[in-house]
Amino acid sequence: MTERFGGIEGGGTKFVCALGTGPEDLEEVRFETTTPEETLRRCATFFAARGSPVRAIGIGSFGPVDLDERSRAYGFITSTPKPGWANTDFAGRLGRDLRCPIGFETDVNTAALGEFHWGAARGLANFVYLTIGTGIGGGGMMNGRLMHGLVHPEMGHIFLPRHPRDNYAGGCVYHGGACFEGLASGPAIAERWGKPGAELGADHEAWEMEAHYIALALVSIICTLSPERIILGGGVMEQQPLLGMVQRKTAELLNGYVRAPALNEGLKEYIVTPALGNRSGVLGAIALARETWERRRGEE
Amino acid sequence: MTERFGGIEGGGTKFVCALGTGPEDLEEVRFETTTPEETLRRCATFFAARGSPVRAIGIGSFGPVDLDERSRAYGFITSTPKPGWANTDFAGRLGRDLRCPIGFETDVNTAALGEFHWGAARGLANFVYLTIGTGIGGGGMMNGRLMHGLVHPEMGHIFLPRHPRDNYAGGCVYHGGACFEGLASGPAIAERWGKPGAELGADHEAWEMEAHYIALALVSIICTLSPERIILGGGVMEQQPLLGMVQRKTAELLNGYVRAPALNEGLKEYIVTPALGNRSGVLGAIALARETWERRRGEE
Repeated sequence: MTERFGGIEGGGTKFVCALGTGPEDLEEVRFETTTPEETLRRCATFFAARGSPVRAIGIGSFGPVDLDERSRAYGFITSTPKPGWANTDFAGRLGRDLRCPIGFETDVNTAALGEFHWGAARGLANFVYLTIGTGIGGGGMMNGRLMHGLVHPEMGHIFLPRHPRDNYAGGCVYHGGACFEGLASGPAIAERWGKPGAELGADHEAWEMEAHYIALALVSIICTLSPERIILGGGVMEQQPLLGMVQRKTAELLNGYVRAPALNEGLKEYIVTPALGNRSGVLGAIALARETWERRRGEE
Repeated sequence: MTERFGGIEGGGTKFVCALGTGPEDLEEVRFETTTPEETLRRCATFFAARGSPVRAIGIGSFGPVDLDERSRAYGFITSTPKPGWANTDFAGRLGRDLRCPIGFETDVNTAALGEFHWGAARGLANFVYLTIGTGIGGGGMMNGRLMHGLVHPEMGHIFLPRHPRDNYAGGCVYHGGACFEGLASGPAIAERWGKPGAELGADHEAWEMEAHYIALALVSIICTLSPERIILGGGVMEQQPLLGMVQRKTAELLNGYVRAPALNEGLKEYIVTPALGNRSGVLGAIALARETWERRRGEE
C-alpha cells in the first residue's frame, strides 16, 4: 500500500484539502472558508471519506498562529481579526477527529516548504518566500530549517518609506500606511486607484509604485537575512510587468552595496516567482505531513 | 597544560588580540588599525611571542567579508571603502604565519557568539546582535547557528521612513539618507546636530529622533526574523536615555500587532544592551577559536 499523506492549505478565503505524495499524485478539493466549525468538519470529512487512514496531515494555516510546542495554544489560530476564527484550535481539533499526527505551520512557511521540496528553492538552506495578495506575509528557511523564533515572521509589517507621489492613507488596521501590507497589498492597490489591480492596464502607473514598495521591502529582507533566493507568490505578482520591475528596482535601490553575482547578472534567478505556481501551499502541506510522520516514527 | 585560544576583534579603527579561554582568563592587547601589512604583523607577533602555540584563532572582522568556504576569497575582507584594506586575505595570512586553524566571521556575528556563550543570549536559538556606532551592523543566530546566507546580513542598510522633523541629507555613501546607517550612525548624529552625540545633553531632541530610527529598524527586524531577543551594542547605545526610549517606541510602532509577552511586560528583557559590554567581540572570537578547534578535531 502506498503511504499517503494529507495536506491542508487553510486560507482566510478558501481551504484546499489534498491527499497524496507529491506533485504527480494528488487528489484535491477546495471550498470556501466559512465558520471554524463547518470548515474544519469539511476537512475531517474529506480525509475520513477516503477509506484507509492517512499517515499524517500537514496544515499550513493563515495566522497569526501559535507554533510553540510548549504552549497551551500550540496549533491554534490566535489573534486573527477574521470573525469567529480567533483562538481556534485548528491542529488539535483535526488530530482528535482523525487520530493521526498533525504538522502545523504558517501558510507562508508551508508554501516555502513546497518550493524547497519540488520548486524554486531546491537545495537552498537560506531563502525567503513572500506572498503578496489580499495580505502580505513571508517565511522561508534559515540554516536549513523553517523560520520560527519568538512567534513567526510577519514580513508584511516591515515599515517602508513612502513613495513621493503616493497620497493613499494606507490600509493596515494596525499600521495604516506605514507598513508594507498597508501600502502594497491587493486591497491597498484597489483602494488607491479605485479599482482592482486586475482591471488596471499593464502600463498603469500603479505598477511602478507597487514595484517600488516591493523592492524597498526586498532591500530590508536582503539586508536583514541575506537569503540565497527570494520567491514572490500571491495574486498581485501575477500582474505581468511586475516581476521584472521589482528585479530592476531592487538592484537600483541596493546601489551596488551588496556585492554578489546574484544581485547583478544573476538577478533573474535571484528574485523569482514560485515554480509550483499556486500549488506551493498544498504541496508544502503534503511535505510537512511526511516530515511529521518521519519524525514521529523516529521517536518511537 | 591549559588549552588556550586566540581571538582577534578586527575593527576599522582598532584591533584587539587576546589569548585565553573565557571572561575570567584573558590576556589582551589593543592597537590602532593602520595598514593591513603592519596590523596583521602585529597580530601575528602578539600570538607568536606568547610561547606555546595556540590551538586555534577566531577572527571577528569588519567587512564586508567573504564567509563562503567554497570561495577563493574565503577569509578576505572584500569591498570595504577603508583605504588599503579592500581584498585583504585576513584569515589566510594569519593561518600561514601562525600555522593553526582559523575561524573567520563578521565582527557582529562574533560579538553575537560572545553574548551567546557568556552574555545576554545564553540558551537562545534565535536572536539579533546590532551594533550602532561609527557604522551600523547586525548579526546573530537563527535556528541555533550564526546567520550567513548569500553573503551575510547588512542590517545597517535597511531602508527607513524619514522622521517628519529631520532635514539631514544622510551620510551613507551608497544610500544617502535612505538607510538606517545613513540616518542613525554616530557620524550621522554628529553631522546632523553639529557636534558628537557625547557632547549633546541627555534631554537633547537628538535622542528622540535617534530612538525613533532605531525603533523603526527594530520593527523591520522583528517582523522579518522574529528574534527571541535583540541586543543593542556600539558607542551610540552608551547614551543614557536611549535604551528605554527605544524599548517604548518599538512597542508603540508595532502597535500590538505581534502578540507576545516579550513585546509587552517583557520588553526590558527583550531589547537589551550586551551583558559583556564592549568585550562581546573579543570573547566571541575566543569562542569561535574553540569551535573551530573542536570542529577540526572532530574531522580528524
